[in-house]
Amino acid sequence: MHSLILSADVGGTNMRTALLNVKGEVLKGLKRPSMAHKGREALIKRLVQMFQDTLREGGADIRKIRGIGVGFPGPLDTERGIVFNPPNLKGWEEVHLRDILEQEMGRPVVLENDANAAALGEYWKGAGKGTRSLVCLTLGTGVGGGVVLEGRVWHGAKGIAGEIGHMTLVKNGRRCGCGNRGCLETYGSASGIITTMKGLLERHHIKPKEAITLERMGKWARAGDSLTRRAIRETGVNLGVGIANVANLLNPEMIVLSGGVTNLGGYLFGPLREEVKKRALPKAVEGLKIVRAELGDNAGVIGAARALLLTVAQGRNG
Amino acid sequence: MHSLILSADVGGTNMRTALLNVKGEVLKGLKRPSMAHKGREALIKRLVQMFQDTLREGGADIRKIRGIGVGFPGPLDTERGIVFNPPNLKGWEEVHLRDILEQEMGRPVVLENDANAAALGEYWKGAGKGTRSLVCLTLGTGVGGGVVLEGRVWHGAKGIAGEIGHMTLVKNGRRCGCGNRGCLETYGSASGIITTMKGLLERHHIKPKEAITLERMGKWARAGDSLTRRAIRETGVNLGVGIANVANLLNPEMIVLSGGVTNLGGYLFGPLREEVKKRALPKAVEGLKIVRAELGDNAGVIGAARALLLTVAQGRNG
Repeated sequence: MHSLILSADVGGTNMRTALLNVKGEVLKGLKRPSMAHKGREALIKRLVQMFQDTLREGGADIRKIRGIGVGFPGPLDTERGIVFNPPNLKGWEEVHLRDILEQEMGRPVVLENDANAAALGEYWKGAGKGTRSLVCLTLGTGVGGGVVLEGRVWHGAKGIAGEIGHMTLVKNGRRCGCGNRGCLETYGSASGIITTMKGLLERHHIKPKEAITLERMGKWARAGDSLTRRAIRETGVNLGVGIANVANLLNPEMIVLSGGVTNLGGYLFGPLREEVKKRALPKAVEGLKIVRAELGDNAGVIGAARALLLTVAQGRNG
Repeated sequence: MHSLILSADVGGTNMRTALLNVKGEVLKGLKRPSMAHKGREALIKRLVQMFQDTLREGGADIRKIRGIGVGFPGPLDTERGIVFNPPNLKGWEEVHLRDILEQEMGRPVVLENDANAAALGEYWKGAGKGTRSLVCLTLGTGVGGGVVLEGRVWHGAKGIAGEIGHMTLVKNGRRCGCGNRGCLETYGSASGIITTMKGLLERHHIKPKEAITLERMGKWARAGDSLTRRAIRETGVNLGVGIANVANLLNPEMIVLSGGVTNLGGYLFGPLREEVKKRALPKAVEGLKIVRAELGDNAGVIGAARALLLTVAQGRNG
């Protein structure tokens, strides 16, 4: 009877919703701007509207919906369904989003951290299909992470597990938004790699003719620019150090990398894989797959649907 | 009927065996030198003899024994019960130790990595009693680690998980025995802290009147020696960086520290805790307990017994 799932992936810029079957196939998807600046209530209203539009356009009845999985920026309390003030959303101080959405939609709702949802999506239907454990790193504006062990997200004691982006890589390194210094995020994110590029140009007294973007760096690297290639290589090495640490600590079967930075392809992945091999223990590297994500922007909605299935199967029911 | 457990904790220097009940209470314990230099077969023979002596001195019959848990230096394949060439034991290249001991003793045998066994022991009966997740670091000759999540050791894809000692702390730092540079072990182990102390003395052109040992460093620190305190503080900071990384990645409820280095007490733990607080995300530090191990040298045999119980309950039976 409850053979369908609704899910959402809410970000500071865009929101996605999807209608899926229990096999994780997306039957209908929508994407709209979040307009986060208009505040919390407006966003929730728009999200509910998107759920209704997704149902309608997908030709599905809400009574067929087992529940709704929602990927949302952390920190969250997934057990109690509470959002705590995500850095890129204003006015979300301790919002009981699960209860609000359950009231609005009349179906069970499960919240999952957005990076965890992406990891779970890749595990279920993407690059990680068939593995037992993986760690997913999202290299975008920041560096997000998710740890999936034996098919489930490892949340930790306070729901913060998976914050690989805030691993200290260089003790007195770059200042991070979290207050720490030398976090992986300050080197491996999109802005991190651009900072590295700018630093190299400055040291060589070169003034860039156009603004430095990830896309342009990809173009320059392919055209053979040695400084660009060096900036990407240094980033790959830094990511490799962090991933080697993860491999030694958790020994996952797979590391999945997603986000804009992975578009740099082999210029990034080559030195990254080499560094992991150099640093991690042989047994931790044996059979370790380091791959690009496969689901693109759908990872979040697919993973959020999976989170719903796992939780509703576990006992929470509507 | 099978209400008792035998267990062992085998090290390069000493071997311990114990007779326990299923509540994890040690009814009888033995400790003898391993004499590892006499080779593999001699060691196995002595271990079997110790099991028999433990039974006899404990007044127990082998028919009462549910099984035998054995903590052994890694790398191991715990699922297949194989020992692969541990760095401090010669001649142990791919030894099917589980099968050998099952043949000798006629009861089911479970192998567990020694650092994991210690972690599991502390979780079950020591500092971690009542927690749901902990990470244990053994600061001894090297730095060993064990990850316990929801009551079970996380082994990873190839059984190597928990190798926190080989986390890169300083990219071009001290050479480690594993071939990498800047591993936590080279700063946080007993020899690591002594190296730090020697470095400080050299820089201050001071020749130590006696050999530097952990015990003496503890004495000097208590007597107010500022260089010794500084060496210990630097070690605490380095361990703190590593532990903050673990806290961000796994968000455990507790970090348990064991081994000789923890005898340095507050001189080490103070700066260590401060550094974790400074580096880790607030949610990862919230409620995080960083404590000394409680079981001392018994952690290994108690944890090995727990590993046996968990595995035999899971299906392997004799």
